[in-house]
This record gives sequence, structure tokens and C-alpha cells, in this order.
Amino acid sequence: MADVARRAGVSMATASRALSNHPHVAAETRARVLAAAEQLSYVISPEASRLAGGATGRVAVVVPHISRWFFAALLDGLESVLRDADLDVLLYHVGDTADRRDFFQRLPARRKVDAIVVLGMPVRDDERARLELMGVHIVAAGGQVENYPSVSIDDTAAGRQAVDHLIFLGHRRIGMIAATDPAEPGWPTGPGRTMAYRAALADAGLPDDPELVVTVEWGGRNGAAAMERLLSLREPPTAVYAHSDEVALGAMRTLRRAGLRIPEDMSVVGIDDHPMAELADLTTVAQPVHEQGVLAGRMLRKLLAGEPGADGVTVPTRLVVRGSTAPPRR
Amino acid sequence: MADVARRAGVSMATASRALSNHPHVAAETRARVLAAAEQLSYVISPEASRLAGGATGRVAVVVPHISRWFFAALLDGLESVLRDADLDVLLYHVGDTADRRDFFQRLPARRKVDAIVVLGMPVRDDERARLELMGVHIVAAGGQVENYPSVSIDDTAAGRQAVDHLIFLGHRRIGMIAATDPAEPGWPTGPGRTMAYRAALADAGLPDDPELVVTVEWGGRNGAAAMERLLSLREPPTAVYAHSDEVALGAMRTLRRAGLRIPEDMSVVGIDDHPMAELADLTTVAQPVHEQGVLAGRMLRKLLAGEPGADGVTVPTRLVVRGSTAPPRR
Repeated sequence: MADVARRAGVSMATASRALSNHPHVAAETRARVLAAAEQLSYVISPEASRLAGGATGRVAVVVPHISRWFFAALLDGLESVLRDADLDVLLYHVGDTADRRDFFQRLPARRKVDAIVVLGMPVRDDERARLELMGVHIVAAGGQVENYPSVSIDDTAAGRQAVDHLIFLGHRRIGMIAATDPAEPGWPTGPGRTMAYRAALADAGLPDDPELVVTVEWGGRNGAAAMERLLSLREPPTAVYAHSDEVALGAMRTLRRAGLRIPEDMSVVGIDDHPMAELADLTTVAQPVHEQGVLAGRMLRKLLAGEPGADGVTVPTRLVVRGSTAPPRR
Repeated sequence: MADVARRAGVSMATASRALSNHPHVAAETRARVLAAAEQLSYVISPEASRLAGGATGRVAVVVPHISRWFFAALLDGLESVLRDADLDVLLYHVGDTADRRDFFQRLPARRKVDAIVVLGMPVRDDERARLELMGVHIVAAGGQVENYPSVSIDDTAAGRQAVDHLIFLGHRRIGMIAATDPAEPGWPTGPGRTMAYRAALADAGLPDDPELVVTVEWGGRNGAAAMERLLSLREPPTAVYAHSDEVALGAMRTLRRAGLRIPEDMSVVGIDDHPMAELADLTTVAQPVHEQGVLAGRMLRKLLAGEPGADGVTVPTRLVVRGSTAPPRR
């Protein structure tokens, strides 16, 4: 702290106030102190922090979405383990670019948690630097984050299970509805699931027709619109592989409205096993979402206890065949 | 604190450790201290707590379910307002009776938040007493909680909108799928929505046939099973009113599997306007869930700022007609 204060040209008291985000510090002074702290890599190791009595009993959980099932189910699993360990959950929703910048900028000054769990969200290099400034344990779930122990599925393997199922049923003209998330640029879920599609077609010796891949922003309505585009082709596909179940459920609405029968006229497969997939009889590739949150929580407890064994984990996915897929008519 | 220690027959230091849940206090001692604190109504008013520098910048949010859409959407709205006010959210999931007892028992000793928001959950009298021991502001959203400012819909009015719509379409034999939640005994949502059904039938001069009301635990699968019971009647209904959209979506699966057409063979109406209701073309009574979280957050900000105007709010619901309801064939 003395070094930070010296470098920023302020008193220790001011440096401390600036780092703890006290209101009576001029914005410019705070910026200077934060910059000095960053230059000096003002890092407290978790061990040192604990020895210094720094344990807060709190864990920050960072999520890009709260009300979407996938993120809420991860949080549910994680929270159950942290609660059992008597750790409190501080929830941080970073929904857009401004939120993210704000959150990661102010993180090192917060120093009010023992650990951070990042749920279903990529972390950029500059953000990672801010996280590391905090000197706390970091774990990711619902997706891999480079350099940190992560719990996730293999998106490429999951995509292969979905598309290989359609190929095995005899489909030769297979569409894909790919999804992006503006809140999560750089998230590898999309590319992995799309690469799986192309790889499966290539392995089966099927042509890769660009007009069969429609990319939309994630969401059921957009899945419905994507299906409309596929139905407007001169030669529509006989089966559709959707990035996730919500997108697939939107596609199914379009098919129903067009008077097409599922699976007789068109097969549909998703990824996730959202609770609604079961109610809609949607064939899907199931991933254990709640369990990924639980595993991340256990991993964090080990890290906080100084135990080894907190490497990343890839949890398996599996095909769940329901009523939305069948061989093509012909 | 001195009074609490004296009454419990322990030192001030022990009383303090017991109240702050320190590990090195015997369970029996802790129980004695907590009892003494309760007998003495160890209450700190929010104002006194703030004057004493007690503002933590944290709000406890208590939920009975995390991964169900309704609760996650409430939390999403609430979090957005609290974040703007620079308040941190501590999330407490109290899923079953043991969780609840544990949470409310230990609450007064926690004293680490400025306020508590209870989401979509009834609070029993003894639990209310524990909450009040904390001497912090309390707000409820997604349901009314006696004595606290609450943001909610009028469940009876919402139910009337749904059933009156079926009656207006000409249905005379209307079934109801009522739902209960073991995590929330005493929650008035169920009774309100069921009373609305009986009142609407009575006002229309229709008989109240007990076999037309099937009560199940909340959930899509149970909605599906309830619909099976209605289809096994000698004279099934021509329309079904479901407690909520997830329950209705389960009922629709049963109808599809039975080869029945919606709405030609059976009309279905739900309550909520879950995002999946739109994708399933389900007619429903929409409630603004995210907005209820936002309004509760604003109410809390007013309370924390010492401003007036934090009375309860009832937000309106409205019928959304989609493709699952039509006049009965005949």
C-alpha cells in the first residue's frame, strides 16, 4: 500500500480510500491510485489474504444473464454447495459491455470476497488481468475460461451427437440454426457447436451448403424466424439442428404454423435438455447444468481449503431421443 | 449486548461471538444467547444502525427457488435496480423446511445487510419475528407478505380473466389444474387462483363439479398427469384452466399424445406469460414479472433513503389470446 501511495503521489490514507471505493475521493485521484496499483501488480495471494484475516466468507458469482434457465440452473447448483460451506453468494449481473467494463474496472478495489465464480461467460484478457489483481481464487462453470479451473461440456462433442443422430436416421439435407449472444462476444459455445455440424457432414460425405446454416441472436423468437428462412429455400432441409433447445422450440412453432408435422415432415434436434424440451417432446443432447454448478462449488471449496485436485472437468452429454426426430419420408 | 450477555449468563465477548456465529461457541451456549437476544427484542432500527455506521451496502434477497423462470425473472429485475444504486445482492436460497428454519434462526445474528427482499415466498409469523429482530428494511415482491410493502399481482383477478375468457367463448364444462408448492406452504397464490375459478363458475350459473378440479404439485410433468386424470373422466371438460403456464404446457403434451387438437378438441389457458407460452401458442394471463422486481428495488431504495411512498403495489395482469383457446365444438 505504501508503494502504491508513493507511486500515485498520495497519502496512504488516500490510497486506501481510493482502493476501497470511498465516496470522498476525486475521480482523478482514484484513477491515479488504481493505475499505480495495477502497475505494481498489487496482488494479494489468497493464502496471504487469509493469513492476514482477509477471509470474508463471501463468494462473488458473475453471470451474463440471470433469468435464462441455463444460468439460473448453474447458479442453483453452485449456491447449494456454497451454502453448505457457510459461504455467502454475492451476485453480479454483467449484462452488457458497459456493465462488464464497470464491473471489471472496479473489481480490484472491491476486495470483499474470497473467490470469484464466472458462470457461462467468456473472460477477455484485460478482464482476466483485473480478476488476477484481486488475488482471489477463480473458477468457471458452464464454459471454459482459459487459465482457470472450469467445469463445462465439450460443445463440439455435443454437436456431433446431435448431427450424427440425424445422419444415422438417414437425413442428407440438414439445416442448422446457429446462435450468437451479443452479451458474450467470443464465447466458444457457438463455434464449437457449428464446427461439429460441418465436421459431421464432412465425415458423412455430405456437401456443406452455406444456405442451410442460418445464424441468429439467441432466443426462441429468433429460432422461429430462422426456421422461416429455411422454409423459404427452394429446397428446404428435411431436418434441423438448433444451437440450443430454446432456439429449437421457436423453430417448432414455425413448423406448426406452416401446418408441417414434426417429425414426419421435418425432424428437429436441440442441445441442453431444457425442462421445456421434455414437455415439447423435443429430441435433444442433454447436459447436466445443475451438476456443473455443484462441481464448480466443490472445486472452489477445495481451493479455499488449500487442497489439490481442482483441475478442470468436462462433464459428458448424451442424446435423449423424443418425438421430434425420425427418418425422412421419401 | 450487555443485557443479552447478562440474561444468558455469559460474558459480553461470548455473547458477541455467539451472535456473530463464531465457530468456537458451544451449540447450547449459542442457543441460550439467541434466546436471550430474542426475549429482549434485540432490535436495532435501520436508522440507528445507519447512524452507527452500520450501512453495509448489501441487500439480502431470499428466494424459495432459483432456477424457475418466475423467481429468476423477479431477481433479474430487482438486481438491475440495486446494482444501479451500488448495492450488492447477497442471495439466499431457502428451498425446503430445514433451509428455512436454518436461515431464519440465524438471521438476527448475521446483521450483515441493510435490507431484505423476499421474492415470491410467504413468510410465517415466527419467521417474521426473526426478520424484525434484524431491524432492517423488508420488502416483498412476486407476492404479498403481510405487514411489509409488497409488489404483486391480484391472483384472484388474474384467475377471473382466464376463466371468464373460457366462459365467454361458450365453454360450460371447464376443468382446473390447481398447483401447490411444498417449498411454500401457506402461499396465497394457489387459493386466490382457485377461488377465482369457483367464483367465475358461480357468477355464470355453472355447476361446480369437484371431479373437474385436479390438484397437483407445481410442475410441467404434474400438469401432464393432471390432464390424464381429466381425460379419464366419463365426461371430460371442453376447456382447462391451469394454475400457471408450465402446468398448462404439461397438460398440452398429454393432449398432443392423445391425438387431440388444441383448441378444436380442448382449449387450454394458463397464467404468467412464461417465455415458452409464446413459443407454444398458449393463451395466458400475462403478469409483468421482471417489472415487479424492478418496482420492489425502487421501493427499497426509497426506504433506504428515508423517503415516503413505499406502500404496496398491485400490478395489473392482462389476457393474451393465442392459439390454444377457441369456442367449443359441439
